[in-house]
Amino acid sequence: MPIDPTRIEGQIAFIETLDALKQVRRRNLVMDGSRRENSAEHSWHTALMAVVLAEYASGPVDVPRVVTMLLLHDVIEIDAGDTFCYDEAAARDKAERERAAADRIFGLLPPETGAALRALWDEFEAGQTPEARFANSLDRFQVLFQNRNTQGGTWRLYDIARTQVERRMAPIRQGMPELWPVVEDILDDACANGILKP
Amino acid sequence: MPIDPTRIEGQIAFIETLDALKQVRRRNLVMDGSRRENSAEHSWHTALMAVVLAEYASGPVDVPRVVTMLLLHDVIEIDAGDTFCYDEAAARDKAERERAAADRIFGLLPPETGAALRALWDEFEAGQTPEARFANSLDRFQVLFQNRNTQGGTWRLYDIARTQVERRMAPIRQGMPELWPVVEDILDDACANGILKP
Repeated sequence: MPIDPTRIEGQIAFIETLDALKQVRRRNLVMDGSRRENSAEHSWHTALMAVVLAEYASGPVDVPRVVTMLLLHDVIEIDAGDTFCYDEAAARDKAERERAAADRIFGLLPPETGAALRALWDEFEAGQTPEARFANSLDRFQVLFQNRNTQGGTWRLYDIARTQVERRMAPIRQGMPELWPVVEDILDDACANGILKP
Repeated sequence: MPIDPTRIEGQIAFIETLDALKQVRRRNLVMDGSRRENSAEHSWHTALMAVVLAEYASGPVDVPRVVTMLLLHDVIEIDAGDTFCYDEAAARDKAERERAAADRIFGLLPPETGAALRALWDEFEAGQTPEARFANSLDRFQVLFQNRNTQGGTWRLYDIARTQVERRMAPIRQGMPELWPVVEDILDDACANGILKP
């Protein structure tokens, strides 16, 4: 049975478009401190974290949905760029830029696939379902290990205080409440070691 | 309920170890040609391809299993490095190096998680189940788009001939047979454009 050329063309266009996420640089550093992390490898890392940390989700979650959500959560940055989490000016038009990006990028796919993946991204952004809450937690949790392995990383570079980090990490209280004490321990150590301002 | 400190320590050790896959460089280039791809971002790309191309798998497959398999398929390179697919000398002790890496890396996890993920990696390597065949196809298929977008990429750089590429791409005939004509079209174009030796 011959395949539908319009479908495969759209699917390949999406696959080729994805490649550009490897060039979107986040602020935080990879753990050996040698360079900034890109959003593609970050997405991979958080998706595998979902597999390994599923037992800490606040309630029963559909892990494959979380994994797919995390694989997709940053693709809109291909058009919209990465917005630094402590940059309040850039945050203002972030939602609008990201919606336009989602329209274009998910729109490359056959309609039913595009709609399903777009719905997953919308769900992640809304952060209301157990899956979205768990995914958002993992997105935050990963950064802790990068900063503690790079002498404070973005905390030091941008002169961030502990209260700001705690606000930023707050989704972990909802998504993986049992791991909040682990977060506090890491921040205690970071303050004691002088890599985070108390 | 307090969490088990031994479990979370192992899980965090695994998560921190994963970061090193972002420093393992493959031979092929990212699609803008600016640098070599790393194995973490490659794994992310193939995992999302599984979601988007599931309809072309040769039979019914458990897509989440395929996605997890692809997220994991290269983590052994953290210890064993990436072995270039056209390097026959390095291929000789590849299996042994990779098994030792799998023992160490999956061994960081709590036993039942480590065993489950190790089994998925073994399954990918054996390439016998429908899921493993589909995953292996995607691993090969991705490279076509990188090479056609970078004036031949590794084909030109290492003076590879079409017959070698066809042998390398052969798993696609098993894993996504309907897409084999797409492979042939891409190779026809590459030969016609002088970026692949006939």
